[in-house]
Formats: sequence, C-alpha cells, structure tokens
Amino acid sequence: HVRRMLQQMPACDVALLLQSTPITERKILWQLTDPEQQGEILEELNEDAMESILKMMDPENLAAATEGMDIDDLTYVLRSLPDDVYQQVLEQMDSDERHRVEIALAYPEDTAGSLMNNDTIALRPDVSIDVVLRYLRLRGELPEATDALFVVDKENKYLGDVPLARLLTVDPSENVESIMGKRPERIIPVSMSENSVAQLFERHDWISAPVVDLQGELVGRITIDDVVDIIRENTEHSMMGMAGVDDDEDTFAPIWQSTKGRTLWLGINLLTALFAASISNLFENTLAQMATLAVLMTIVPSQGGIAGTQTLAVVIRGLAVGHIGASNMRWLIFKEVAIGGLNGLIWAVTIAGVVYIWKDSIQLGLISAAAMFADMFMAGLAGVSIPLFMQKMKIDPALAGGMVLTTVTDSVGIFSFLGIATLLLNHHIAI
Amino acid sequence: HVRRMLQQMPACDVALLLQSTPITERKILWQLTDPEQQGEILEELNEDAMESILKMMDPENLAAATEGMDIDDLTYVLRSLPDDVYQQVLEQMDSDERHRVEIALAYPEDTAGSLMNNDTIALRPDVSIDVVLRYLRLRGELPEATDALFVVDKENKYLGDVPLARLLTVDPSENVESIMGKRPERIIPVSMSENSVAQLFERHDWISAPVVDLQGELVGRITIDDVVDIIRENTEHSMMGMAGVDDDEDTFAPIWQSTKGRTLWLGINLLTALFAASISNLFENTLAQMATLAVLMTIVPSQGGIAGTQTLAVVIRGLAVGHIGASNMRWLIFKEVAIGGLNGLIWAVTIAGVVYIWKDSIQLGLISAAAMFADMFMAGLAGVSIPLFMQKMKIDPALAGGMVLTTVTDSVGIFSFLGIATLLLNHHIAI
Ligand SMILES: [Mg+2]
Ligand SMILES: [Mg+2]
Ligand SMILES: [Mg+2]
Ligand SMILES: [Mg+2]
Ligand SMILES: [Mg+2]
Ligand SMILES: [Mg+2]
Ligand SMILES: [Mg+2]
Ligand SMILES: [Mg+2]
Ligand SMILES: [Mg+2]
Ligand SMILES: [Mg+2]
Ligand SMILES: [Mg+2]
Ligand SMILES: [Mg+2]
Ligand SMILES: [Mg+2]
Repeated sequence: HVRRMLQQMPACDVALLLQSTPITERKILWQLTDPEQQGEILEELNEDAMESILKMMDPENLAAATEGMDIDDLTYVLRSLPDDVYQQVLEQMDSDERHRVEIALAYPEDTAGSLMNNDTIALRPDVSIDVVLRYLRLRGELPEATDALFVVDKENKYLGDVPLARLLTVDPSENVESIMGKRPERIIPVSMSENSVAQLFERHDWISAPVVDLQGELVGRITIDDVVDIIRENTEHSMMGMAGVDDDEDTFAPIWQSTKGRTLWLGINLLTALFAASISNLFENTLAQMATLAVLMTIVPSQGGIAGTQTLAVVIRGLAVGHIGASNMRWLIFKEVAIGGLNGLIWAVTIAGVVYIWKDSIQLGLISAAAMFADMFMAGLAGVSIPLFMQKMKIDPALAGGMVLTTVTDSVGIFSFLGIATLLLNHHIAI
Repeated sequence: HVRRMLQQMPACDVALLLQSTPITERKILWQLTDPEQQGEILEELNEDAMESILKMMDPENLAAATEGMDIDDLTYVLRSLPDDVYQQVLEQMDSDERHRVEIALAYPEDTAGSLMNNDTIALRPDVSIDVVLRYLRLRGELPEATDALFVVDKENKYLGDVPLARLLTVDPSENVESIMGKRPERIIPVSMSENSVAQLFERHDWISAPVVDLQGELVGRITIDDVVDIIRENTEHSMMGMAGVDDDEDTFAPIWQSTKGRTLWLGINLLTALFAASISNLFENTLAQMATLAVLMTIVPSQGGIAGTQTLAVVIRGLAVGHIGASNMRWLIFKEVAIGGLNGLIWAVTIAGVVYIWKDSIQLGLISAAAMFADMFMAGLAGVSIPLFMQKMKIDPALAGGMVLTTVTDSVGIFSFLGIATLLLNHHIAI
C-alpha cells in the first residue's frame, strides 16, 4: 500500500518525504520506492541525506538506478561516493556512459563545468526555420528547461541562440542566422565559478545559458533549476556557517552523526572561551577585591559580540551577492567603523546610567562606559575587516569569521573593563 | 561620458552598480541613468536601496518611470512609497493603469497574488494548433519566461497548459485540447503564501505556473525569476535575522540609517545581558569569597550559547524548507535533546579536566562539569523547542529565536555554575 503510494508520487515529492523522515524509517521507505525512479530521487536529496541512502546501496543497484540520468545530476551523486564504490559503479556502466561520466567528472566541482548538462540542441546558421521546425517535430521532445536552441559552426564554435519564443513567432522562411541572438554576455566559460554563474542567472533572469570551453566550443548548457539549488545552497551556507553547523547537515540525521559534526566547532569555541577566561584570570586580584566587577564584566562583551556579528552578517552577504569590491571597500570600512563608534557612544552613555543607578557608583559607571565604547568601536572595525581579510586570504568568512570576531570582542571587552578597573584600584581611587 | 556608459548598460547591471555605491555617489549616478530605464532599474534594487532612490523622485518622475512596467514589479515599487506620494503617483497614471494597479495591490503582500504578473496568453481548448501558431506569428513576441501557454474555457476557468516545447513538436493539425497538459498540482491558488510558492517551484523545477482565484479562474502567472528573488530573500532573512540585522539593510546605506536600524537589537541584547548580570549578582557573596569563580563563570554560557545556536539554525532551516511537520517533530525534539545530552557529557568531561589542571582543584572541575552538562542539555532542549513554539505562535523564529535562546543558555549556565559553587561553599566544603 505504502509502496503503491510512493511509486505514484513524483520523484521530488518522494525526496521531500525522505528528507523529512528519521533515518530508520527512511531506510524502510527507500526499499519501497520504484527502482526506476531511484536515480531521480537521489539527486533531489541534499548531500548528507543522499549519503545516508547511498550507504545502503550496492554498486549494481547504483549503476541501475543512475542509468539514463542527466549527466549533471549523475556526477552530483557520484561525487558523494567513496572511491572504491565509485570505481565499482563505473565498472558496471557500459563504456559509452563511463566515458561520458569521466569527461564530466574531470571538470572541477563548484564550476560551471560541473553544473552543466550536455543535452544541448545545436543548429547550423544556414538552415531555414522551416527545416528546424520539421526537425523538432521529428525529434518529438525537448530537454527540460529548454528556452532556446543554440547555434554553432562546423567546428562546434558557439555563434548565438534562437529562443523558442522566437522560433514560434518568426516567418518560417527566414534562416537561423538572420534570427539568432548574439548576446555575448550570456556565454558562460566552463571554468567560471558556480557562484558567479548563479549571480549572472539571478541578475539577468535567465532560464538557460550555453557553456563554452577555452576554444569557444559549445560544451553544455546550464539551466535555472540547478542554479536555484546553488543559490539556496550558498545562502544556507552563510547562515549555517555563521551558526557553526555544516550546511549539508541532514535535519533527521542519526544522533551520533550530528553530534560528531557539531563537535569540532564546540571544541574551537571552548578554546576561545578559555582564552577569554585567561584574560580575566590576569585580573584575579582585582576581582578578589571587588566582586561587583565580576557581575558587571559580562555585559560589555555581550554587546560587542552582537554589534560585531551585525556588521559581519552585512559584509558576508555583501560579498556573497557581489556588492563589495575594491572600489567601495574603503567606504564600507569607514562606514562600519563609524557605526561602531556611534553605537559605542549610545551604549556607553546608556550603560553608564544603568550601572550608576544599579550600583550607585559613578566610577563603575564610567569604567563600564569606557569599556563599552572601546569594545563596540573594535566590534565595528573587526566585524568589517575580518571577513574582508579572510576573503582575500581565500578563507571562508561565513565559517571562520564569527569565531574570530567574538574572540576579539570578548577579549577587548573583558580586558578594557577589568584593565581600567585595575588601574583605578591601584591608584587607590575608591570605586 | 558616464551617462553614455550607464545608458548602454542593461538595467540589471545598473542596479548592481547602484547597490554597490555609497549613498552620495549613488544619487549622482541615478541622475545620469536613462529615464526610460528607471522603472526597470528600481525593481531590481532591494527594498532599502530602492527607498533611498524613491526619496529623491517626485510623483511625476515616478509615474513616468513606472509606465509600462510589469504589474508585479510595479506593485513592488509602489508598496515602498509613503502613502501620500503613492496617492500622487496614482493620480498621475491614466485610469486604465490605475485600475490595473489597484486590483494588483488588493492582493496581500507575500502571497501568490502579489508575486504574479498578468501577462498570460490564454487559448481556447477547441482551437487547432495551426491557428495558435498563426496567432503567435501575428503577435510577434512572447512575455518573458513564457514556457507554456494556458488554456481556459469561456468563463476564463483554467483548464490546462500547452508548453512551447510541445507546440513545436506536435502535429499542427491537432487541437489544443488534445495536446494540453492537465497537471492540477501545478495550479497555484492566489492566496498561497510566497514561501509555499517558492518551495513548489524549487521542488518541481518549474519555469512558470498559472495562478487561479477561488472560482478557478485564471488571474495571472508566476515566473521563476521572481521566485528566485523570494528564495534569496527568505534564506537571507534567516541569516540576517539570526545575526540581528534587518535583511533589507542596504550595504551602502548612510551611517546614521544603519546605526538606527541596528540599535533596537542592541537595546534588546543589553536587557538580556543585564538580566544575566543580575543572576550573577545573586551570588555576589560567593564571588567575593572566591575570585576564581568569576574567571571560570563565562566558559559554560559560551559553550551553551554555541550549542543552542547550532540546534536553532538546523531547526530554522528545516522549518523554512518545509522538512519539519507534525509527524516528525517529536523525533526531532528527541534527537536535539539527545545531542545536547551527548555534547553535555563530552564537554563536561573536558572542562573538568581542563579546570582541574588549570586551577588544581577537583571541586572546581566538578562544579564546571555539572554546570556544563546542565547548560548543554538545556541548549538542546531550548534550541529545538523555542523555534517550534514560535512557529506555532506565528512569531518569526529567525528574528527572535537567537535572543531568547541565548538568554536561556546564559542564565542556566551562570545560575547552575554559581549556584552549585554557593551550595558547596555554604556547606564549608573546601573548593
Ligand atoms: Mg556544490
Ligand atoms: Mg532576477
Ligand atoms: Mg540539470
Ligand atoms: Mg538539480
Ligand atoms: Mg555543501
Ligand atoms: Mg516580499
Ligand atoms: Mg529543484
Ligand atoms: Mg532536477
Ligand atoms: Mg525581473
Ligand atoms: Mg515578473
Ligand atoms: Mg523581480
Ligand atoms: Mg524583506
Ligand atoms: Mg524595509
């Protein structure tokens, strides 16, 4: 019964169901899916969910399930396999398919080459539209998300494209050359990064675009459905990265697997927390003289961390969508430092008042205010310069930025607060 | 010279340039853009950047710039205007256009109705394909992102669609009814939420889909390019929300505007930080007896905050992509609490060792360990239940979740650490 239901659902809905199911039941459901559909289902899953299922398939199953899949989807699945299984799957394929896969896998991950499919329909420029229309009727079906046919010369060099809408609206006696669009800005080099491809599609509202190699030969076609997956992946990557989780994490992964995945990040955080504690440790004498300082010392780092994270998020997003470049970087740094300074003033005054009223001490209020200003100013500076610097060093700011930033704001916050208090105490100023 | 360059660029590239430019220069650039193109440029900008430009336009300019815009884009722009300006722009329009705009603006924001365009091409079922083809040639052009024509009956009730690819490949003597696809799952009710529309497009890889009203009449069409903007917006909303910034914030907004935008969040955070401080204030006597406690008390809340944020991010993403529902919620809660418990054990043991070595005190190590376990367990529980509860209460977990969560983990962390220490001290157990 469940089997029949599953086999009547479209692959994308089965994939959604599997991703929404805890791992033990997921395995049972998978056994009930239509073997013919398994390839399509697999490619709709995110990486960790797909791996959870790949683990239970043997190479023969896999080769059968992936038969006839689009090459872009197939390589997505194959890239997730352990090396030995991958070799075995390849052996199960016929030599044509194997050759096709090996070419596709030669393009580096995260480039246009790994995103493209080879289902292009190419026309010659001297053919008449009438002939094209007759050819299409003979062919009978067009590849998914085809909004244009491509035009190439005898050497397979890309010349231009003929949108389907144009094919339907021009006089059939015209020829391809006279109606094709050139649009050189629409040609995607095979080595372009996934991220740049996504930015182009998003900005220009494309449905599909041709991919060419260094010689200008047409090698494939990228379609919006796969670009949508990249956009989703990239923005999720920023969000999950800043929160310290792997963006591939499967919501319903086994407990132990998720725990392991999150542990590294917690370990790094413990080191930074110990580092911050070692700074307050420098001031143990001061703290021993006055316990109120211990009560107040957590406030400033908390504000600094939030202000820095706000700046960090704005900069990480700006980098991801391509708004930040050499020409506006100085202005951005200036702006974020200025915001840090302004916020510093606002919250310094506020905290001075709060602490004065709460602890009835002008000195404690002033110490808090000075530390607050210093930390928020630092938060602005660090929040903007850390991600820009990391980007330059090719470190992913979404992953490492937050941890480095809060280490800076925690340290500066605690050091300035306890440092100023110690100076005043040592000069025997009553606080 | 700059003017000529700007006027030769496509609108989407001008929009990118404007968004990448600090506000003062942005205004100058805007003056140099082609007035004909201004409508198209405006709709490509994000909300705050658009508002920065709308402010400098008077109602006549605006009415001129928005003439001939797609209705979905036009309403996006108009919704950002202050009420009085909006009325004036409306008065500048001719009565047809005004009527069209008023209908479109009647659909609530963030629903299919506000996403759709009214550029549908509708066919009758009894027409032959040959007639359709001749009609299209007469028409001469198709609306952007048209991958299918729609079929309606005399009452304008939606019947099905005819993909362009099918038009090109079938025998022209067939009629519309015999080749149209029914695909009832593809019909979007006008009141469906933006977010559900985006999930459907993403899952089914659609290029466009018909929108119908309660009576089943065709009222418009949603296209993938606008869905891509929604997907980008929604995922950015999660990321920016968790970091405490408005997702509309313009990277190059004026300093004062950004400062104001971020201030509310900092104010709320200060309240939570003061609340946490007031908890350690309860234990001022304990802290006065032993300054080492002040040094160590920041470590546990830091770990708890990170662990809780990891869980929160996984749950917020799961909710956003529709993986979490009534059927798997209990398992998810169990899983995240279990991860909290496991992480609690791992880091309790670790911190016990570290503190024992650092401070040479078994008791301090054990206090840290107990507090660590309690806080990480709580982090798992709060990290999963806060966003699920908020979702149920229709509060946005991406906005409020992080602040509530870290307030819980900070409080539990400090209270358990200082509380246990106080108990031991009061029982005169040497620590
Ligand atoms: Mg990838
Ligand atoms: Mg777009
Ligand atoms: Mg594909
Ligand atoms: Mg795909
Ligand atoms: Mg990934
Ligand atoms: Mg909206
Ligand atoms: Mg998809
Ligand atoms: Mg697909
Ligand atoms: Mg558009
Ligand atoms: Mg549109
Ligand atoms: Mg749009
Ligand atoms: Mg928004
Ligand atoms: Mg706004």
